Amino acid sequence: MDSMRIVEAQAEQTSSRILFLVMDGLGDLPRYGDGLTPLAAAKKPNLDRLAKDGCCGRFDPVGPGITPGSGPGHLGLFGYDPTEYEIGRGVLSAVGIDFPLQPGDVAARFNFCTLDSDGNVFDRRAGRISTEENRRLVARLREIPPPKGVQIFVETEAEHRGALILRGDKLGHRLGDTDPQHTGVPPLPVTALDAAAKPTAKVVAGFVAAAREALASEPSANGILLRGFDSLPKIPSLGERFRLRPVCIATYPMYRGLARLVGMDMPPPPQSLADFPAAVRANREGHDFFFVHVKYTDQAGEDGDFERKRTVVEAVDRLLPDLLGDGFEVVVVSADHSTPVALKTHSWHPVPALMWSPGRVFRDPVTSFSEVACIGGALGRSQLRFLMAQALAAAGKVAKYGA
Amino acid sequence: MDSMRIVEAQAEQTSSRILFLVMDGLGDLPRYGDGLTPLAAAKKPNLDRLAKDGCCGRFDPVGPGITPGSGPGHLGLFGYDPTEYEIGRGVLSAVGIDFPLQPGDVAARFNFCTLDSDGNVFDRRAGRISTEENRRLVARLREIPPPKGVQIFVETEAEHRGALILRGDKLGHRLGDTDPQHTGVPPLPVTALDAAAKPTAKVVAGFVAAAREALASEPSANGILLRGFDSLPKIPSLGERFRLRPVCIATYPMYRGLARLVGMDMPPPPQSLADFPAAVRANREGHDFFFVHVKYTDQAGEDGDFERKRTVVEAVDRLLPDLLGDGFEVVVVSADHSTPVALKTHSWHPVPALMWSPGRVFRDPVTSFSEVACIGGALGRSQLRFLMAQALAAAGKVAKYGA
Repeated sequence: MDSMRIVEAQAEQTSSRILFLVMDGLGDLPRYGDGLTPLAAAKKPNLDRLAKDGCCGRFDPVGPGITPGSGPGHLGLFGYDPTEYEIGRGVLSAVGIDFPLQPGDVAARFNFCTLDSDGNVFDRRAGRISTEENRRLVARLREIPPPKGVQIFVETEAEHRGALILRGDKLGHRLGDTDPQHTGVPPLPVTALDAAAKPTAKVVAGFVAAAREALASEPSANGILLRGFDSLPKIPSLGERFRLRPVCIATYPMYRGLARLVGMDMPPPPQSLADFPAAVRANREGHDFFFVHVKYTDQAGEDGDFERKRTVVEAVDRLLPDLLGDGFEVVVVSADHSTPVALKTHSWHPVPALMWSPGRVFRDPVTSFSEVACIGGALGRSQLRFLMAQALAAAGKVAKYGA
Repeated sequence: MDSMRIVEAQAEQTSSRILFLVMDGLGDLPRYGDGLTPLAAAKKPNLDRLAKDGCCGRFDPVGPGITPGSGPGHLGLFGYDPTEYEIGRGVLSAVGIDFPLQPGDVAARFNFCTLDSDGNVFDRRAGRISTEENRRLVARLREIPPPKGVQIFVETEAEHRGALILRGDKLGHRLGDTDPQHTGVPPLPVTALDAAAKPTAKVVAGFVAAAREALASEPSANGILLRGFDSLPKIPSLGERFRLRPVCIATYPMYRGLARLVGMDMPPPPQSLADFPAAVRANREGHDFFFVHVKYTDQAGEDGDFERKRTVVEAVDRLLPDLLGDGFEVVVVSADHSTPVALKTHSWHPVPALMWSPGRVFRDPVTSFSEVACIGGALGRSQLRFLMAQALAAAGKVAKYGA
């Protein structure tokens, strides 16, 4: 049996508090020359102190060699096996714009596209129209009357991207993409992939036809392409699994959405990094698990900007004393995936992690926090979900198994 | 598929001998100041030599973050997935007093308790009566005539604790505890948790009532509270799984009982640590797996006594040349769980392990045996059951898998 089932069975609610500080895409590769990563190059006395007094290791968000999207990466961080819960692109799009998706809702991502006079796809992204233009077009689509018993939500994501959400009784989410992924061919018809989805396919097909009519006079964005139909997966909450009372301190909708999927409380987002400590303090009562998410490391990695990624780490480090001010029994600092500067995108490399918990964790010989230093850490290398197990244990939240 | 299934399928009986030296609760945490653990602080030239010539690593008895009881810890050591076989408290109590439990027997732990004149529990432990007193009361309970077709065994454990064992055809073990875990309330009635346990519940209820009558005139221990009803789990033996012919050299009944659960031969226990080498020698013929269990490290850990734990390691080290005298192809030294001095109880931290097998194991750069040194060892960090797999392999007992 997966040992996380034992962690669940032995989980106990206690007053001890865990801070889970996640620097998105933190993991990186040593650069040529000095062999430093942005994390290794950063001046970060506070993080280094936590590493020195705590223990370190490296974790594979999903498994060796697997590059995770944000969904699987965060599921791993939260102690879930990301291979057990698929979060469809439509659901991620919806939660990523803070749309309050309900169980049974069917969500899809859509692109505005350009269709030629024969009805073939000419440009899958409609010339990457602006987000503002997107909003104008979405307003039109919202005027399409839904069929009886179904609510239709049309939401702008950014540029040419949007989310379509259907709400109603007995909707099916097993629908094929209409995006053919190629130009010069017509959009694919809406197809039900199982019997339960047949009525839903009809509703979507009606909407697509109506959208084409509504957009007929548009010069570029005269059609839509849909993909990633899905419903909310049935994910047991952190409360159900580990008896945690978790709260999310994150600015970006996508991560707030992922936190919502595992049942975190959701106070208003802090406006900037400087507001994080106050947000943590404001939610101190009634919570014992604090998910604090910093997006900027990932953005710098995606931009291939070593110096900026280093600077973000330093900014987080300066924040740390204030962030820890009120006392946590356990502090974890890690990432949902690596975004190496040299690759400018998510990668499969394990993420560095530190865990600090005075008197409770194995104080290993690691004296600073970096990808290289973590190789020698007591946490070793394992799947990311086991980091949560060890944080819960250090917090005294896992009772002895067996007599 | 779990890779241990392949180890089972490829297992071969050979003449090579494996010594599995288990120091109970050996794993510890670096103390503040010099960062030493009792194991690291101990003068142990023989263990260090084995580590230097062998390879080291760390192992999670059940999984990361899980604190094992003695049962799951030893199952892991013996190469079993402890999440597959739950050993109830009643069974552990019975095997822990060397009671020869048979398949189908139903065992429960009991406490002598004090009931007030209203029949409510006044003291769940009857003032922690002496073991001698316990024996006197048990003699009384043994006079209670059993119903037809059922044998009842009443056994002293220690102080207020005992074991009740029922033997007969078609007994059910799914019975609820009668211990209410609180005072000021009556004991819970004996309840069957499934249909198969209904007749058994009647037998137990009859015994509880008779016990109350038999103890009515006792000043403190005038009732019994039962918990942890269970039967022997169906655990395939080490012989069945790995074709081993194992023998147990252990002084403490609990560990002898656990070894018996996996089919080990059970010569009389050595009287003291000094007798271990002779006991190993005496059982050399006909055996190829020697489980040698030293309890004292765990006791020192539970007492929070760093120096005593260190001293036990040193005593074991002095014994080692004699213990190894007759030659083993593979020597493993490890633990069933960590019992850090600072925590005074079992913990979730991985256990250190060394494996020695000249010419057969990877001689890694580790030159001494300690928790910190093991971080850099070739065995890495994995589940404890995989230590057995590698010991079997080093002993030449696992044939090549696939062509």
